[in-house]
Amino acid sequence: MKKVDFLLILLCLNAASFVVFGDPQTCPADLGGKCSDSDDWEGDFFPDIPKIKYEGPTSKNPLAYRWYNAEEEILGKKMKDWFRFSVAFWHTFRGTGGDPFGAATKYWPWEDGTNSLAMAKRRSKDIAPDGNTLEESNKNLDEVIELAKELQKGSKIRPLWGTAQLFLHPRYMHGGATSSEVGVYAYAAAQVKKAMEVTHYLGGENYVFWGGREGYQTLLNTDMGRELDHLARFFEAAVAYKKKIGFNGTLLIEPKPQEPTKHQYDWDAATAANFLRKYGLINEFKLNIECNHATLSGHTCHHELETARINGLLGNIDANTGDAQTGWDTDQFLTDVGEATMVMMSVIRNGGIAPGGFNFDAKLRRESTDVEDLFIAHISGMDTIARGMRNAVKILEEGSLTELVRKRYSSWDSEIGKQIEEGKADFEYLEKKAKEFGEPKVPSAKQELAEMIFQSAM
Amino acid sequence: MKKVDFLLILLCLNAASFVVFGDPQTCPADLGGKCSDSDDWEGDFFPDIPKIKYEGPTSKNPLAYRWYNAEEEILGKKMKDWFRFSVAFWHTFRGTGGDPFGAATKYWPWEDGTNSLAMAKRRSKDIAPDGNTLEESNKNLDEVIELAKELQKGSKIRPLWGTAQLFLHPRYMHGGATSSEVGVYAYAAAQVKKAMEVTHYLGGENYVFWGGREGYQTLLNTDMGRELDHLARFFEAAVAYKKKIGFNGTLLIEPKPQEPTKHQYDWDAATAANFLRKYGLINEFKLNIECNHATLSGHTCHHELETARINGLLGNIDANTGDAQTGWDTDQFLTDVGEATMVMMSVIRNGGIAPGGFNFDAKLRRESTDVEDLFIAHISGMDTIARGMRNAVKILEEGSLTELVRKRYSSWDSEIGKQIEEGKADFEYLEKKAKEFGEPKVPSAKQELAEMIFQSAM
Amino acid sequence: MKKVDFLLILLCLNAASFVVFGDPQTCPADLGGKCSDSDDWEGDFFPDIPKIKYEGPTSKNPLAYRWYNAEEEILGKKMKDWFRFSVAFWHTFRGTGGDPFGAATKYWPWEDGTNSLAMAKRRSKDIAPDGNTLEESNKNLDEVIELAKELQKGSKIRPLWGTAQLFLHPRYMHGGATSSEVGVYAYAAAQVKKAMEVTHYLGGENYVFWGGREGYQTLLNTDMGRELDHLARFFEAAVAYKKKIGFNGTLLIEPKPQEPTKHQYDWDAATAANFLRKYGLINEFKLNIECNHATLSGHTCHHELETARINGLLGNIDANTGDAQTGWDTDQFLTDVGEATMVMMSVIRNGGIAPGGFNFDAKLRRESTDVEDLFIAHISGMDTIARGMRNAVKILEEGSLTELVRKRYSSWDSEIGKQIEEGKADFEYLEKKAKEFGEPKVPSAKQELAEMIFQSAM
Amino acid sequence: MKKVDFLLILLCLNAASFVVFGDPQTCPADLGGKCSDSDDWEGDFFPDIPKIKYEGPTSKNPLAYRWYNAEEEILGKKMKDWFRFSVAFWHTFRGTGGDPFGAATKYWPWEDGTNSLAMAKRRSKDIAPDGNTLEESNKNLDEVIELAKELQKGSKIRPLWGTAQLFLHPRYMHGGATSSEVGVYAYAAAQVKKAMEVTHYLGGENYVFWGGREGYQTLLNTDMGRELDHLARFFEAAVAYKKKIGFNGTLLIEPKPQEPTKHQYDWDAATAANFLRKYGLINEFKLNIECNHATLSGHTCHHELETARINGLLGNIDANTGDAQTGWDTDQFLTDVGEATMVMMSVIRNGGIAPGGFNFDAKLRRESTDVEDLFIAHISGMDTIARGMRNAVKILEEGSLTELVRKRYSSWDSEIGKQIEEGKADFEYLEKKAKEFGEPKVPSAKQELAEMIFQSAM
Repeated sequence: MKKVDFLLILLCLNAASFVVFGDPQTCPADLGGKCSDSDDWEGDFFPDIPKIKYEGPTSKNPLAYRWYNAEEEILGKKMKDWFRFSVAFWHTFRGTGGDPFGAATKYWPWEDGTNSLAMAKRRSKDIAPDGNTLEESNKNLDEVIELAKELQKGSKIRPLWGTAQLFLHPRYMHGGATSSEVGVYAYAAAQVKKAMEVTHYLGGENYVFWGGREGYQTLLNTDMGRELDHLARFFEAAVAYKKKIGFNGTLLIEPKPQEPTKHQYDWDAATAANFLRKYGLINEFKLNIECNHATLSGHTCHHELETARINGLLGNIDANTGDAQTGWDTDQFLTDVGEATMVMMSVIRNGGIAPGGFNFDAKLRRESTDVEDLFIAHISGMDTIARGMRNAVKILEEGSLTELVRKRYSSWDSEIGKQIEEGKADFEYLEKKAKEFGEPKVPSAKQELAEMIFQSAM
Repeated sequence: MKKVDFLLILLCLNAASFVVFGDPQTCPADLGGKCSDSDDWEGDFFPDIPKIKYEGPTSKNPLAYRWYNAEEEILGKKMKDWFRFSVAFWHTFRGTGGDPFGAATKYWPWEDGTNSLAMAKRRSKDIAPDGNTLEESNKNLDEVIELAKELQKGSKIRPLWGTAQLFLHPRYMHGGATSSEVGVYAYAAAQVKKAMEVTHYLGGENYVFWGGREGYQTLLNTDMGRELDHLARFFEAAVAYKKKIGFNGTLLIEPKPQEPTKHQYDWDAATAANFLRKYGLINEFKLNIECNHATLSGHTCHHELETARINGLLGNIDANTGDAQTGWDTDQFLTDVGEATMVMMSVIRNGGIAPGGFNFDAKLRRESTDVEDLFIAHISGMDTIARGMRNAVKILEEGSLTELVRKRYSSWDSEIGKQIEEGKADFEYLEKKAKEFGEPKVPSAKQELAEMIFQSAM
Repeated sequence: MKKVDFLLILLCLNAASFVVFGDPQTCPADLGGKCSDSDDWEGDFFPDIPKIKYEGPTSKNPLAYRWYNAEEEILGKKMKDWFRFSVAFWHTFRGTGGDPFGAATKYWPWEDGTNSLAMAKRRSKDIAPDGNTLEESNKNLDEVIELAKELQKGSKIRPLWGTAQLFLHPRYMHGGATSSEVGVYAYAAAQVKKAMEVTHYLGGENYVFWGGREGYQTLLNTDMGRELDHLARFFEAAVAYKKKIGFNGTLLIEPKPQEPTKHQYDWDAATAANFLRKYGLINEFKLNIECNHATLSGHTCHHELETARINGLLGNIDANTGDAQTGWDTDQFLTDVGEATMVMMSVIRNGGIAPGGFNFDAKLRRESTDVEDLFIAHISGMDTIARGMRNAVKILEEGSLTELVRKRYSSWDSEIGKQIEEGKADFEYLEKKAKEFGEPKVPSAKQELAEMIFQSAM
Repeated sequence: MKKVDFLLILLCLNAASFVVFGDPQTCPADLGGKCSDSDDWEGDFFPDIPKIKYEGPTSKNPLAYRWYNAEEEILGKKMKDWFRFSVAFWHTFRGTGGDPFGAATKYWPWEDGTNSLAMAKRRSKDIAPDGNTLEESNKNLDEVIELAKELQKGSKIRPLWGTAQLFLHPRYMHGGATSSEVGVYAYAAAQVKKAMEVTHYLGGENYVFWGGREGYQTLLNTDMGRELDHLARFFEAAVAYKKKIGFNGTLLIEPKPQEPTKHQYDWDAATAANFLRKYGLINEFKLNIECNHATLSGHTCHHELETARINGLLGNIDANTGDAQTGWDTDQFLTDVGEATMVMMSVIRNGGIAPGGFNFDAKLRRESTDVEDLFIAHISGMDTIARGMRNAVKILEEGSLTELVRKRYSSWDSEIGKQIEEGKADFEYLEKKAKEFGEPKVPSAKQELAEMIFQSAM
């Protein structure tokens, strides 16, 4: 990675969120999708890390790709265009290794070595949250943004999406758009407004609304109906403002069931879809599905992707995974090839994920403290998804799983199937038909065969 | 309970579902709501059980009500009209105590002692499911229905709701309306058609669509989008048929996340609401919320009731509870007074639950084998809900919890709050206001005080 | 499979459990481990199923092994000797597809076609549970056993283990050895006594104590301490009887956290180990670890295997898997190669699993109704485990994961490490050393690298 | 509360843990048990908080006790001696309201207003963790300890227990006693040594080993057997040192299943008991049961208390509760009276909890930011437990639940029951008896009646 690109990632993306809160923790970079040198992770900050190259499945080199080959064509598109990988700024560059029981364990080279003016300014501001007004924050942000804009001239790096972080500051303890305080709602609106402007200015292609603290801790003190109405008003205003400034990026909602609140309003894909439909916003938003959030809500990642897809809402993927045995968001790098294969089957059915992408919303384990680990983790995550893609294609091209499903539903391709699907078969007609048919024949669902076919492609 | 009433419950309700499947397992009776003698549980079948009377909280008699007093007025209505209790036919009268690992443990007096023609006929048919055609089933059902109708003349007992059971028979192993076989869809339609007719004929006030096996076991062999489309077509046809026959009862969907399938399509209230909105059915259905299903889906019962309520969908309550530590539907009688109080707070906010009611979708533990246990369980469940009602009223009348919530949202009653709620505050206006306000003051949420107030009323 | 072998499995194993209860549901067959023709699944009952052969990973034939090659040597042993596969009689041959919401869906050829005297007798007895005394049951059993013994003469099939089923009959509703009724305890003892005799007579190599209903539904009516004391007395008597009759097989306990009771006394491996230690039984028993039970108790299968192993208790494996999102025992066939690889890593560390084996405690999904599905499921399960073995060997032979772990603990191979491990380092000495050392250097745990190495071997 | 007492709590207890790590977060105070003025929460720091008095159940005053009446005798002991309440220093006095997604929200008066030398010193050290050696830390600690000791002269406040915190500092990222680094083990030993000395010096009555990070994140890089051996060596050394310095307090282990590691070695009470038995430490330790940890491990709090009790290990209670729907440790104040009643039933069976006590390991919700909330929360927690005690006594004195259980097991009080319990009934004798008995009679377990009796006492 060239130093200019690295700095750009830190600046432009940090900036995009910086406008909105004291402690920048957001905004991913589109490393893989847009920028031809973005997978060349080398240079000043990482003198010991070589350029990461594709070496194929038999390679023993942990600093090489075994399955991800950016320029290779697969199903008519280059790999990098299928995935549009992006690095999560807050996890990868600012993640400290802290957890509720532990202090920071990470000491990255750019955290102390950098002496750029902008970075120094930002750091000092990060630790001085009080006393700042919205105006001051915005002014500081503008400085950083200009530097980022400048750096973009020599680079292809653009934000995959921008966002505003509305949960860290004490003012947001009851939520942002769903706060019980109207002044907080206004403050949140002002932050999102600025973040949308900056995202637009830097060429971002999407804008994400994180769930933040939009939810409740106990219904005893909460007016859920009124809070949801406020959230809808907030989104309506965001849609209006997006159009006003000519920003054409997709607006994304990211479902999550719990954490930090006991109940987040964007619980899962179906809950978010119900909300959007209820308030007439269904055509203005898409969903950003995170695999770890899916499992926390009791679903598989594949289920959430499919639910989003059949509701016409699949917009972006937070590519991570959780531990099946733990009840909180562990944000691990996805390394399960089976899960990755299912994810890619949904993406292929969706015709791809652009203008969204795969954002690595995943963090190193707290105990992984070498710079090398950062690369190993991302390589592993990218390789897993690439391997999932190769497997999904293999399954599709081999054809027997598709055929199994086609055959399973073949009775619906009959005359009466067609009538029902077109809404032309009422109960009286169906009763008549049922009597004609007699006891229906019901074939095996062939789940074990489907699993065998699936596993054989791994 | 008079013998005629008891027989009627067995016949009329059994009948209502009998039409639809081989093994009748459905249809609750409105014991408390409509029939003045329905809480007099005494008579031929239970020679040792006295009439159950209200004796007040200090009573030590397990066969007496401590909190439920049917005729007592509370918040302007009689208790029995608030609750409209109904007995679950399948659990209470036909529950055998069997579980996946155990044989029947229950030997109720009516299971061997009865010698009525109708009952004998029904029994023999129950154990001869194969060889029957739809026509034969319907004909047999008609006989039973006529006897029930006859008995109704001397009684006030009516079905709270009717339903069709579409999951027991092997033909429904892939679902009913979402089966991969079109012939099964037709068969299911014919059964529901008949069940709706019978429910209407017997004066039922609601019709419930159980989730049955409408869901999937694995996405590998499933076309979820197409199956959901079929489910919508089915519901559309049901709405049309309901109107055609002049049945004015409410149509109800009962959310459940899992069991028997890995993923039931009516996962929770929000998922069901999204489905209804997507297919334009939102005004034709309400929800039947079951507390045990709520906790299985990761929510509290109160959350599901409130979600249904604010979506305008709260129609009926399956009054039971689950074990917080087990991952399947235990269908226990609700005995937690705190939970009952929250339930009643939602019901009061909803203005009552009629024309729905409280159905005891709860079963004796397998190890509880005395006839007496059946009465103790129902008395305990009724008393718990009545006690919850008394507590909820106490909390409302005492007023401090309501005041806590009112105060918490009071900033929204300001001018700007009103503008936002009316959709008149765009981002630019809000940013201007945020700058004027400066850093907003954010008061305590007072959760511990709310809990203290709540608990003090227990 | 030769008809004689098939009959033998049905008879001898059914017999082993038959002695103990009305409805035989137990006792696995050692198909893979002992009998050279046992993987030749062909013959009279399955005219359409060819002999299952090893065809290698590129085969597209669902009725062939891709990874399991019985005679192939791996790490110095034949595959069949590593795995000692056994078929679960109750799932594979008697599983009906019934679930708490559904009737039987399976119609296997041997369920109606068989006309052997013994089978007919058994069937008729199965459905006549009442009226039988213990004496009658034992007498009937003896007849079946003699037939099985006779058939064994021409075959190498032996029971992997025998057991008694103490949960189906109503008498066991409060448990067997932990029943609140002393008469039930005596009855259970008599059944286990007979089952141990029969297992011994038929050459069984292990005897398993299923958890059954040894547990509680609510502590309100339970004296847990006294019940556990009774369980210990029961096991002591079993140990004494085993020795008395000269049965040298391993006694096994099978941990399970819940189902059918809310809390099973053999919750997980550590709980079972604590029980065995408390009552001085630790040297008389080993554990039968089931993967699905492991995940239900909040652990991974690998964790339970390792916990058993480091407590010296790993005796047998119930090779199945659960759905990570459902809260009950789904008993699916294991198809996750990653999980199988971890399982085999534990087995290799354990020096193999004999005299135990891999029992397929897994059932076809209810919707899988073709005879072919039965074969596909077992082939898939056997192949998955064989593939896991191949991967585990690959990882061991490649060596970098072993080296990563060795290096991680290398500071313990120092002088002070040795002193601590030998119990020679007290707090004062350690404080002195800590002062000498100064702040210790703490290297990265390299979790992502470990995962990358692991996944690369898949 | 007198200022001197308050200061003492801050100093002495902070001190007890301070010795061991940079950021003091530990050591509870015995407010209720020992010090006659400790429930007089008034004085300099809380000018607006009146003395908290007992006003009885009808009081509407949130700053009064409704059920806790310190000097009232119940079952032969004063309430305060039953409970021995202690405040959790780290939650109550140092809890900031931060969570993984949020900054501090609490601004308590003592955090900025205090200008005592000792406190200032401590604060400045807290934020300067690096550069300190073990020697320096110990020296600083000694200063604080001396001040605490001095203040104790005018007060009855003593630590309920002391502990060392071995998880916050990066050196402990792989654990303390189970670290993969031997130097960390030595460092941990030195910290525990000092903490035991200080606890002893200040009159502490127990010493707790928190689980910290003793566990693993993945088995791929972990040698679980070796780590557990190290943990045992560590505990052996602790036992030896305790005896050497003449400290007679109880050593306590606190089970917890997860968080911060994926798998904590002290998973639950049974797991901890197995560990203690395996290494011959069973007579040297007791358990500190935390209710929220109990539910996270899939048990009820009551189950864990009973498991500890029947293993002779119930030593202390961390009185809090979790949210049944969330998968992490929420550490809420216990307000469920039913749960408190079960807890007290175990404590009464245990003959009390001394020399342990009830430690409020519970924290205000992040959104509760008034000083008043701190008092309301503790009052609510104390009242809940006191109310639980009153209910438990009512149930015991009323007698019908005890009678129900006695009757349930009455067959065990027969001759044969006695023989079995004494280990005198072998399988042959039992078989003989089973034949004599014939089919045993199995009565109802009366769960619903037990629940009715229990709920009626609430």
